[in-house]
Amino acid sequence: MADGQAIATREECLAADAADPLASCRDPFVLPEGVIYLDGNSLGPLPRSAIEIFDATIRREWGDDLITSWNKAGWFDLPVTLGDRVGALFGAGPGQTVVCDTTSINLYKAVRAAMGLRPDRPVIVSQAGGFPTDLYILEGAIGDGGQNRRRLIGRDGETLDDLLDDSVAAVVLSNVDYKTGTLIDMAATTQKIHAAGALAIWDLCHSAGVVPMAFDGWQIDFAVGCTYKYLNAGPGAPAYISVAKRHHAAARQPLSGWWGHAEPFAFEADFTPDAGIKRFLCGTQPVISMRGVECGLDAMRGAEIARIRAKSQALTALFMARLEPLCTKYGMTILTPRDPERRGSQVAIAFEHGYALVQAMIACGVIGDFRAPDIMRFGFAPLYLRHRDVWDAAAVMAECLAGEVWRDPRFTRRAAVT
Amino acid sequence: MADGQAIATREECLAADAADPLASCRDPFVLPEGVIYLDGNSLGPLPRSAIEIFDATIRREWGDDLITSWNKAGWFDLPVTLGDRVGALFGAGPGQTVVCDTTSINLYKAVRAAMGLRPDRPVIVSQAGGFPTDLYILEGAIGDGGQNRRRLIGRDGETLDDLLDDSVAAVVLSNVDYKTGTLIDMAATTQKIHAAGALAIWDLCHSAGVVPMAFDGWQIDFAVGCTYKYLNAGPGAPAYISVAKRHHAAARQPLSGWWGHAEPFAFEADFTPDAGIKRFLCGTQPVISMRGVECGLDAMRGAEIARIRAKSQALTALFMARLEPLCTKYGMTILTPRDPERRGSQVAIAFEHGYALVQAMIACGVIGDFRAPDIMRFGFAPLYLRHRDVWDAAAVMAECLAGEVWRDPRFTRRAAVT
Repeated sequence: MADGQAIATREECLAADAADPLASCRDPFVLPEGVIYLDGNSLGPLPRSAIEIFDATIRREWGDDLITSWNKAGWFDLPVTLGDRVGALFGAGPGQTVVCDTTSINLYKAVRAAMGLRPDRPVIVSQAGGFPTDLYILEGAIGDGGQNRRRLIGRDGETLDDLLDDSVAAVVLSNVDYKTGTLIDMAATTQKIHAAGALAIWDLCHSAGVVPMAFDGWQIDFAVGCTYKYLNAGPGAPAYISVAKRHHAAARQPLSGWWGHAEPFAFEADFTPDAGIKRFLCGTQPVISMRGVECGLDAMRGAEIARIRAKSQALTALFMARLEPLCTKYGMTILTPRDPERRGSQVAIAFEHGYALVQAMIACGVIGDFRAPDIMRFGFAPLYLRHRDVWDAAAVMAECLAGEVWRDPRFTRRAAVT
Repeated sequence: MADGQAIATREECLAADAADPLASCRDPFVLPEGVIYLDGNSLGPLPRSAIEIFDATIRREWGDDLITSWNKAGWFDLPVTLGDRVGALFGAGPGQTVVCDTTSINLYKAVRAAMGLRPDRPVIVSQAGGFPTDLYILEGAIGDGGQNRRRLIGRDGETLDDLLDDSVAAVVLSNVDYKTGTLIDMAATTQKIHAAGALAIWDLCHSAGVVPMAFDGWQIDFAVGCTYKYLNAGPGAPAYISVAKRHHAAARQPLSGWWGHAEPFAFEADFTPDAGIKRFLCGTQPVISMRGVECGLDAMRGAEIARIRAKSQALTALFMARLEPLCTKYGMTILTPRDPERRGSQVAIAFEHGYALVQAMIACGVIGDFRAPDIMRFGFAPLYLRHRDVWDAAAVMAECLAGEVWRDPRFTRRAAVT
């Protein structure tokens, strides 16, 4: 594959696309005509197969077979069957992952379980500027009584090393920063956390499916993440939680609903957790949205993660190379590391007129997103994006900048953006 | 409407159906040919409109409009817009209900909020034999430290009156018992709970949509429930939580995810809860399954709850009247109260061969369910069931009993049943 930085013309993009071993991975997705979709880091596109699978779930499984589908169609087992497939994306062996609930709720379970595994350690460390819902959930999980507390890397200038001591039960981090796209060395960081006797809880929302990881190999303790970004499972599709087998026997989480019971159909009055990963389940899962996870995974079938990663690095390099002159001319700043080993699959740019620029690009068919106060984010999902798309997206940005779109009231009116 | 008990022939059933003011409420549902569906208390059938609405959500909103649908298609507001509609079914005024997560998780939020509102009261009371996941969640919510504890009505013979004292923060009850169908006087019980200074948390899973209630009128504090039973929202569709406005300012729940934040798009590092009911939200909701809630509500449009209740009482009365002679002959016991004011919309029968009988009836197209150790449950959803269906279901049961189906190995092999 061509190195993205070395590409100097649109023709070279076409050549790189022709030589792309992942070229056919674009086929399973519905990609609207005239749109270059650089927001797959927020909501992945519709897998083509989903139309049929949803229809079968709705008409046949629900409509015709009704209640019998809980067994007959495998609805009841979806958290586990899909969990194993999701876990495989980041190196978690079977029996350690369930698909269920939301990332926020799964993080709550993980943090509460970690606190139980390290009962004499009152501190949970996370990162200032980390994914906000993760920080919020920590507040709730830690509670307002007692000596438990949340400490944030960078809030008062401290590094992880400064904060890691024997008061720390767990460290909660995203391996890819949701704003800047910076990638943390997950193996080394986990090792450091373990050396301090703490547990490592990773949020993989912005890395699963695009960054190679070794959950088992690196001895990760807990991982959580969503399925609707690079896993293309559909809006708000259920999230996942992975828990290393070595913790299953001792790990307890307080959302002790019936799906986490050792014998959910015994209808006992008292709670006995399942012996394995199912103790991290709680209540009945939204089956139709769960089917989206299946479709998203099906659409990724056959795409090797090493190839995805190489193409991701090439596409982000190409985009940054095309943006360099624009940054100089218009006073934009690329926040994403230039070192390909230190970034995920997105490029973030700080720009005072970022909101208007993103809106104007959307109006031209190039969909990125904006995060307050001034950050434009562009995600590069290697399964369905081509080098030519990256080239064209940069060209559209150049045109919008040349047109000073921030003077156009159509693009400056703010609405909530997800 | 004919009184169910007074009907003595199938012809009279047909006459009652012809006179039924709810007769046209059957039209919005897909009801498989040859099936009498008496399990709508577990999973309601597919609303006809859902096929189109799901398809539009999947193809147009997700497929074509992608990320923009969070605003354009109102995805982000679904918990609130659907919440108001769900709340209206049980008398909760607007701004007090959100559709989100699962019943189990919402109960966790309610119990934790109630504990926070009554910090000096360590006891949560519930009911032995109550819905198991509710009992399990209480264990998790109460935690294993300190003096908090769960006390159960009936476990050691105590009544609610015996347990209600100034140690009780909240009482968690289902107003319709999931096994027997017994209906509790919710108004009087809430009054009693309040008189003791405790808060009333009601699980409406088995009553919403079929039993008239007055959340505001009876000063209910919290209610939770699912949408996939009598609300016909689809398998595992998101649940709801209602919290009385008077508690909003002080009520905190620990699942403090970004959807519960006062300004979810400000991406602040610290959690500030929304001023209203949205503080009971947590993370991103499964949009496609959420649309099912909309379809289920649409399918109920125009059906007055008083009429639903009257027909429910007639259908259950008819079924019990038809079963009387069978009970005598085969040693079955009806567990559901004969007093129509004391039952919900289901009939439960204890029978030693119940498992095989339910399986055999399913094989004949009459779908009910079985709950260990020996309870057969039959739900009567007045929107789509007719008097003739009830008559025919009883006739099928009579045939299966006459055929001693429990001697047939096809019907005795056990599988997990939801």
